[in-house]
Amino acid sequence: MPLPPLPRRITIVEVGPRDGLQNEATCLTVDARIAFVDALTAAGLPAIEVTAFVNPARVPQMADGAAVLAGITRRPGVRYTALVPNERGLAAAIDAGLSEVALFAAASDTFSRRNIGRGIEEAFEGYTGLARQARGAGLRVRGYLSTGFGCPFEGAIPVERVAALTRRMLEEWGVFEVAVSDTIGIAHPAQVAAVLDRLLAVVPASSLALHFHDTRGTALANVLVGLCHGIATFDASAGGLGGCPFAPGAAGNLATEDLVYLAQGLGVETGVSLDTLIEASAAMEPLLGHPLPSRVFRALRASG
Amino acid sequence: MPLPPLPRRITIVEVGPRDGLQNEATCLTVDARIAFVDALTAAGLPAIEVTAFVNPARVPQMADGAAVLAGITRRPGVRYTALVPNERGLAAAIDAGLSEVALFAAASDTFSRRNIGRGIEEAFEGYTGLARQARGAGLRVRGYLSTGFGCPFEGAIPVERVAALTRRMLEEWGVFEVAVSDTIGIAHPAQVAAVLDRLLAVVPASSLALHFHDTRGTALANVLVGLCHGIATFDASAGGLGGCPFAPGAAGNLATEDLVYLAQGLGVETGVSLDTLIEASAAMEPLLGHPLPSRVFRALRASG
Repeated sequence: MPLPPLPRRITIVEVGPRDGLQNEATCLTVDARIAFVDALTAAGLPAIEVTAFVNPARVPQMADGAAVLAGITRRPGVRYTALVPNERGLAAAIDAGLSEVALFAAASDTFSRRNIGRGIEEAFEGYTGLARQARGAGLRVRGYLSTGFGCPFEGAIPVERVAALTRRMLEEWGVFEVAVSDTIGIAHPAQVAAVLDRLLAVVPASSLALHFHDTRGTALANVLVGLCHGIATFDASAGGLGGCPFAPGAAGNLATEDLVYLAQGLGVETGVSLDTLIEASAAMEPLLGHPLPSRVFRALRASG
Repeated sequence: MPLPPLPRRITIVEVGPRDGLQNEATCLTVDARIAFVDALTAAGLPAIEVTAFVNPARVPQMADGAAVLAGITRRPGVRYTALVPNERGLAAAIDAGLSEVALFAAASDTFSRRNIGRGIEEAFEGYTGLARQARGAGLRVRGYLSTGFGCPFEGAIPVERVAALTRRMLEEWGVFEVAVSDTIGIAHPAQVAAVLDRLLAVVPASSLALHFHDTRGTALANVLVGLCHGIATFDASAGGLGGCPFAPGAAGNLATEDLVYLAQGLGVETGVSLDTLIEASAAMEPLLGHPLPSRVFRALRASG
C-alpha cells in the first residue's frame, strides 16, 4: 500500500519572524529581524509572516514591526504579511505597504476570552468588519483558527465547530485561506484525519492550511496526513523557533527545515533551499542564546 | 479519508539501555544501569534490550553487561534480551540466563565491513551458525538488519536486497522477527511505504519490526506508515537516549515517550505508563549531563 498521491508542490508559510520570535524570551533588534527575513527570502520561502502589529507592552518581541517591514528587501513574488488584531494594526500594515494580512480567531471560547478578551461570537463579528476593511483597501486576508485541535482550557474542541468556523472565516471574512492551527501542539494523526475529513466536506483543500507545533513530536506525522488529504499549504518556523530544547515546555512551531526535508523525501517541491535556510537559522542561534530544536537543522549543521 | 485500520496493540522493544546508552558519551555505573532497566520494567515495557556483549575496550558503555543482567529484577512475562556479536557473547547471554538474544547484520556491504570487518555474505554465513547455536540452547533469536533505509557510505540500498536479506534472516537464521533499521535516521515516509510493500510481499507483518532514529525528525511519520501497513512492533529508546539536542549530530533513537504518545492518540495500546516511563528517563538526565531529546518527555515534564 503506497502512499496516496500527494500534492506535487506545497507552499510553506514561514512564521518564524512572527510566531517563532514572539515566543522567544529574547527580543531581537530591528536589524537582526530584518537580516533574518532577508535570509529567509534568500532561502526561497514563498510567504513570510514578518511581524505582528500588536501591543509592544504586551509583546515586546514584536515591537517596531513597521521598522522591520521598512528595512527588509522585498523580492517580487514573495508574500510578506503581518498579523493584525485590530484597526490600528491594519492601518500600520497598510502604511507598511503590505498586500496581505493575517487575522486570528479561536475555536475555543475560553481561549478566545483569555487571549483577546472576547468570546468566539463577538470576536468573529468584530473580525468580519476588520476583514472587510482590509479587503476594501485591496489586501488579501488570511485567517488563523487557533485551538483547532484542542484547547489548554477546554480540552477537546468539537470538529463540527472547527468546520463551521472555518467556513465562516471563508464566507463572512472573505479570507483566501484558513490556517487551522494546533496552538498547543497536541494534535495526533488520527485526529488530523478526522478534522480534515469533516473540513473537506464543506470547504476545498485549496482554502486550507495547517499550522502545527511540534510540542509532542507529532507535527511531521500530522503533516503527512495533511498531504495525503491533498492539503498543500503548511506553516513552519525556521529552526523550530519559539521552542527550546532546554526550556520547560519547549513548544516551538514545526521547524521549516524538518518540513522541507520531509517534502524532499516525498518528492514534493517546496522551492526552498535547505542549505540557505539552515544558514538563516544558524544566525539566530547565538542571538537567542539557545540551541534551536529543529532535528534537521542540528543533523545537517553537524554533518556539514 | 480516515487512516486505514491500525493494529489494536503494538509491542515496543525498549532499546535505551543498549542502543541508547551505547551512543552516549558518558559511561553509567552498573547500579545506574540496573536502576534504569528496573524503572523501564516498572513502566510496563514488554521487551527490554538490556546490554550488548561486545568488546568493552571498543564499547565501554556496555562493559559489565553480565553484572547488569544479574542485578535487574526480572518481571515474569517481560522479555529481557542482549545483543550478541559472536560465540563469546552468546555464551555470556546464556550464562546470564537470557532466553532471547539479538543478532545484527547490515544491508550495506561497506557498512558491514567497517562495522564488523566482514562483508554481507561472510557475516550472514557466520551468523547462521551463531543463530543455530542460540536456538539449539533454547533461545529465541531476534535479527537487526541495519542500514535498511540507506547507508552512510553507499547511500541508497536496493529494496530488493533488504527484502532478500530479511527473508534469509527468517529462513536461514531462524529469527522470530527482523527489526529493519534506519541506522542513520534518514528514512522518510514514502520510502518506508516502498520498503514495506516489498517486504510484505515476501514475509508476514508479524515477523517484522521497525527501528527508527529521529535524526531528521521523521521517525514518528515513519511509524505512522508502518502502523498503516500493519506493523505492530517498534523499537524505541526512553527519552530518546543516544542523542542530545546540543550535540553535533544528535542522532538518538525514536523516543519511547513520543511513540507512546502517538499510539495513545491513535487508540493503539502499548501497555506502557507514560508517567512512569518519564520518571525512568528523568533519572537518566543528570547522570548523562544533558537534556534528553524526547519532545513528549520535555513537554510533559514541564507541564507536570
